[in-house]
Amino acid sequence: MSKQGPVQRKLRKSASRNQYLGKDETKRFDITSDKRNKKFDDLPIIYFVTPTYPRREQVAELTRLGQTLMHIVNLHWIIADDVPTCNTMIGKLLKKFGIPFTHIASPMPDVYRKSSVVPRGVANRRAALGWIRKNIHSGVLYFGDDDNTFDLELFDEIRFTKKVSMFPVGLIGDYSVSSPVLMEGKVIGFFDSWPAKRKFPVDMAGFAVNIGFLLSHPHATMPYKAGYEEDQFLVSLGLKLEDIEPKGNACTEILVWHTQTTKKPASTIRISQPTDNSLKVLLENLKYLGMAQSSTSKGAQGLLTKDGATKQL
Amino acid sequence: MSKQGPVQRKLRKSASRNQYLGKDETKRFDITSDKRNKKFDDLPIIYFVTPTYPRREQVAELTRLGQTLMHIVNLHWIIADDVPTCNTMIGKLLKKFGIPFTHIASPMPDVYRKSSVVPRGVANRRAALGWIRKNIHSGVLYFGDDDNTFDLELFDEIRFTKKVSMFPVGLIGDYSVSSPVLMEGKVIGFFDSWPAKRKFPVDMAGFAVNIGFLLSHPHATMPYKAGYEEDQFLVSLGLKLEDIEPKGNACTEILVWHTQTTKKPASTIRISQPTDNSLKVLLENLKYLGMAQSSTSKGAQGLLTKDGATKQL
Repeated sequence: MSKQGPVQRKLRKSASRNQYLGKDETKRFDITSDKRNKKFDDLPIIYFVTPTYPRREQVAELTRLGQTLMHIVNLHWIIADDVPTCNTMIGKLLKKFGIPFTHIASPMPDVYRKSSVVPRGVANRRAALGWIRKNIHSGVLYFGDDDNTFDLELFDEIRFTKKVSMFPVGLIGDYSVSSPVLMEGKVIGFFDSWPAKRKFPVDMAGFAVNIGFLLSHPHATMPYKAGYEEDQFLVSLGLKLEDIEPKGNACTEILVWHTQTTKKPASTIRISQPTDNSLKVLLENLKYLGMAQSSTSKGAQGLLTKDGATKQL
Repeated sequence: MSKQGPVQRKLRKSASRNQYLGKDETKRFDITSDKRNKKFDDLPIIYFVTPTYPRREQVAELTRLGQTLMHIVNLHWIIADDVPTCNTMIGKLLKKFGIPFTHIASPMPDVYRKSSVVPRGVANRRAALGWIRKNIHSGVLYFGDDDNTFDLELFDEIRFTKKVSMFPVGLIGDYSVSSPVLMEGKVIGFFDSWPAKRKFPVDMAGFAVNIGFLLSHPHATMPYKAGYEEDQFLVSLGLKLEDIEPKGNACTEILVWHTQTTKKPASTIRISQPTDNSLKVLLENLKYLGMAQSSTSKGAQGLLTKDGATKQL
């Protein structure tokens, strides 16, 4: 059993340069506690770009991710939603976390919705790149999907990216991992179960980009080509193997996982008569959150259960 | 765009009684900032019980959950793993979060593994109940699975539970929700798509129990009966409908979601020759974490990709 009071836990918010971090995770607290009076203003800002889209699980996913990001200082969250206009419900949700954020409506062009493999997330990431190019001069760009899992150490690792940093991503592909491979600190190739002739066979969550470096390549962008977004974006940055800054303890540790949440369609609940109790407001909230809607004619029969006996609603 | 600096976000750690919380989420910061000098010692401790079991996604799930729980003051995490003896890997992981915790090995008895519907998590929760009965005199018990999503507000809601509090759980069953139904502040029944003649048709994440109340029922326990664990546990507590304390804004708001993570078997990677680079350590780490193992004779062929060309490993 470990005993750590609120003060020690609070210090986790301090940032530490990854080169100071040893292998033994207990060191983390020693290091950060030395920095308790450090101002954060001189730390590069991480621009964390999350493409998202309306679905039954969206609010849960963004809640869980937002609560992870709340731990990180000097982070600006860019949430780009696949909708025609910014949605008030998501806007209100985002304000809850107290994280500086930018909320963008970035619908996928209709032509791509008909593709056999839909390039999901590209319009969102391109919109975020456009916003960064227009408004930001320095810092670090990272693409973090709303269902992935991010170890807090990841943020210490990527914050001082000079050009492009790379690191392993867990739970992806036939190997359960995708990662650069290093020899004597230099990238000698990639370990990824879907090479597809890509120069950079990596996952979207497996790299971070310095924003100054991005801006020095004004035409760098992401293609609407499912499976090739990462590679072609990195190629468009003129990246060379020797430029890559390996992170995650020399690409040997997993600090981000490509977790996926089981998705189901929103529920339709058959309710024949108006309800005059808390269920009325609960059902309104479920509809607002995109989780369920009620109908008088179709869907799963609504039931009220009391003492084991049911009554149709 | 919302601007909140680290200081304001830090204050989120303060606790606030749910009755002070208004509907407008922006109030949260005003309230907690008034309490910045409050000592937490007099707040009831939440005993957060997480049953878990070895699988490819276990470390990712516990990382994500641990990082949520790091926000909560006066919380003690009880992690009960379905293994014969406590696993060093999980023990080391748990220490990273700086949360007081108890790590229990609680294997399911073999007889239940052969059931047509396996009562997963019961041995773990029973072991946690046993530990609490032996070691703890007050506080609040909550069962939180490692793949669920918990809004931080939930903890403010359940912390002052007097007997048993209840609230809606999202993303469960055919209604995408399970919840008590209230009329004039009293529970008049339950809205759950699988009534199954249960007196308390609720999900495991849908209630919290005062530990004094638990201790006053020395024989209360959870049965090895899949689907009926919650109901029979609550019945064994002698709970009456009128005892239930509704939370979640009178059971109208979702503060916990039954998210489920897609599961796949750990990978086997065919690697014929010993690797002498970072991959060697990465593969050792993947094996240690239960995510993948390498083999010289079977599994997905290991490939090293460089400049789009692949080489068998």
